Amino acid sequence: MPSVSHRSETVPLSPFRKLIPYADKAKAAGRHVYHLNIGQPDIKTHPRAVSRFRELDWDVLEYSPSNGIASYRKALTGYYARFGVTLSEDNIMVTTGGSEAILFFMLACLDPGDEIIVPEPFYANYNGYAHIADVRVVAITSHIEDGFSLPSPEAFANKITRRTRAIIITSPNNPTGACYSDEEMDSLAAIVKENDLFLCADEVYREFAYETELRSVLQIPGLEEHAIVIDSVSKRYSATGARVGALVCRNPDILAGVDRFAKLRLSPPGLGQMLSECMLQDDAAYLAGVKDDYRARRDTVYRRLQEMPGVFSYRPGGAFYCFARFPIADSEDFCRWLLEDFEHDGATVMLAPGPGFYATPGLGKSECRIAYVLNVDDLEKAMDCLAAALRVYPGRLVEKVGVL
Amino acid sequence: MPSVSHRSETVPLSPFRKLIPYADKAKAAGRHVYHLNIGQPDIKTHPRAVSRFRELDWDVLEYSPSNGIASYRKALTGYYARFGVTLSEDNIMVTTGGSEAILFFMLACLDPGDEIIVPEPFYANYNGYAHIADVRVVAITSHIEDGFSLPSPEAFANKITRRTRAIIITSPNNPTGACYSDEEMDSLAAIVKENDLFLCADEVYREFAYETELRSVLQIPGLEEHAIVIDSVSKRYSATGARVGALVCRNPDILAGVDRFAKLRLSPPGLGQMLSECMLQDDAAYLAGVKDDYRARRDTVYRRLQEMPGVFSYRPGGAFYCFARFPIADSEDFCRWLLEDFEHDGATVMLAPGPGFYATPGLGKSECRIAYVLNVDDLEKAMDCLAAALRVYPGRLVEKVGVL
Repeated sequence: MPSVSHRSETVPLSPFRKLIPYADKAKAAGRHVYHLNIGQPDIKTHPRAVSRFRELDWDVLEYSPSNGIASYRKALTGYYARFGVTLSEDNIMVTTGGSEAILFFMLACLDPGDEIIVPEPFYANYNGYAHIADVRVVAITSHIEDGFSLPSPEAFANKITRRTRAIIITSPNNPTGACYSDEEMDSLAAIVKENDLFLCADEVYREFAYETELRSVLQIPGLEEHAIVIDSVSKRYSATGARVGALVCRNPDILAGVDRFAKLRLSPPGLGQMLSECMLQDDAAYLAGVKDDYRARRDTVYRRLQEMPGVFSYRPGGAFYCFARFPIADSEDFCRWLLEDFEHDGATVMLAPGPGFYATPGLGKSECRIAYVLNVDDLEKAMDCLAAALRVYPGRLVEKVGVL
Repeated sequence: MPSVSHRSETVPLSPFRKLIPYADKAKAAGRHVYHLNIGQPDIKTHPRAVSRFRELDWDVLEYSPSNGIASYRKALTGYYARFGVTLSEDNIMVTTGGSEAILFFMLACLDPGDEIIVPEPFYANYNGYAHIADVRVVAITSHIEDGFSLPSPEAFANKITRRTRAIIITSPNNPTGACYSDEEMDSLAAIVKENDLFLCADEVYREFAYETELRSVLQIPGLEEHAIVIDSVSKRYSATGARVGALVCRNPDILAGVDRFAKLRLSPPGLGQMLSECMLQDDAAYLAGVKDDYRARRDTVYRRLQEMPGVFSYRPGGAFYCFARFPIADSEDFCRWLLEDFEHDGATVMLAPGPGFYATPGLGKSECRIAYVLNVDDLEKAMDCLAAALRVYPGRLVEKVGVL
């Protein structure tokens, strides 16, 4: 029997993948599992857009152009113009979800063996795409004590080698919910320009910034040749299954490189693009409503975490994630125990253990990511579970309660 | 300004890409262009399926499971059972078009530097995916004289080195329309087993075999651990924009490897999968009608080519492509000239030049691929153009007419 590739056996996998069998078992045993581990919201896909989509007139579902349907790209320039980013259609490459945009960015900007710097904790699938692209992820640790703000310019400068080609950041951040300030981003931009790097900003949670208007990297002066934005309709319109994203940039060489990879895979999903174009229309009320909804959820999670003895967290500024530090020594054990051995009112809660979001071994062992993708009522019940669990978890670090 | 990756500048591109500006110019000048260069059919997407799809009840477009919607995979087992292939749902990985299945196959079965053998001419995008996966494509030449039948077992054996991990074949073939016989495939299977290789069969044109029932590699005894099928709904249901394909195999190690890459990209397109599930229902009359339609087109193209002095072709057994040899020395020049300098009744024709489908330099210079993706009336007009063009093309090899 021929043996499969080494690279297929070493793909870095999702942080909570190992927990899925335990969740399945809990459900099979009749317990309800509140899924706060994944980024799949319960919010309805932009309903008026769905109605319009159903009525669209088409009879041959053709390949779209490899860079996306022309009218959709045109409509996207209007979307970016809303927050002051002036683009031409040619600056936009429509992709199969934000995921493909990440892969295209890495393939177009980095060669095998090159390095990319990322603040940790970070979206774990960057590791997987770096594995495919054969590039090295170099992490800079950010810290829960300051709400995972962007590491200092010096911290970035210290990690730059002759193989460093790019920095990737996520703002609002998955998994921390942090939003990087204009000042933080200006400092980072200076480093990027000084070292002639690419700056890739994953802005898929752009619409969910609860405290301030977030600036796009496309708005930072002098970064025209350096900045690449990863975008997606998945979270914005609660349409994760559409698999429609975009890579946006103004550097013609990057666009030309990305275009070659895009032509290879012929086209992004046609129906998803048609739906996405519908979703861009009269979306103001929808987006505002969704944002209010997430803000209320954010406030619920934050308040409840503050009330739990020994738990340390912060008020996340955006996205729909929060990281928290618990009085535990091994969050993987805690998350497994929640599913395997714990029950509160017939239910339990599933979280994503911290270590999977760090590249540095040993970090995140007391931390978990909480995705507030459930409505406030369910969130309250999930937080009831979590609070009750922390009271009885056998691995609780009693001696640390006073300190935290 | 940071420079883009070397690999993005060296992506092997589509054989007719350079011609597109000439086609655009011809259209701008008011000439009609018959597009026989691409695999985009004019046939309607399975209409009853489209109606059913419009009526489906959903309000949150969620990520599908990374291996595809369970009910769709279940329905696919029924599809494969129709032609005698018994599979479990777990043998099927739903992908983003056949394209992603090709990439997943290469990533899961080959490591960087490994080799894959393919008969040439072949689907040019295999080169691009091999470029991403950093594997080497080794071509074995097949010949127009025998209708591009599968090269001999000895020819394959001669190309096997210690880095050879797989053979990839396309049957029915793009770009030649050849269908490999059971005897040819049995010989190839023996080579595959003897050398412990993977055999990847791109069977996306399975439904379009006009002379005989085609056997799938999944039906060849003893290849259970070796065989991988690339599949797609694109051509079958004329839904190229759906971007829904599949990788099908029975080797659990391959499936586990592919699964890791699939989890990374979260899920294949949701709407496309929903449509694909609708398309699988009562599709017999639709598929039979489409096949009859393509057979009539095939017969038209074959008859017309036979009538053109100096043109050599053969009766292609499947898919919707035909390769032909023309009395010309440079098919790239001929195709450009057709678009730039030729007109017949206000129209011209666009073909795909042969060399782009070969890996061996210098081959295919007298050949073009004809995709019979237009209805018979339009095909006749396109063939009128081609016949007229060959009478006046300044590069025609007059001295060879008698020989061919």
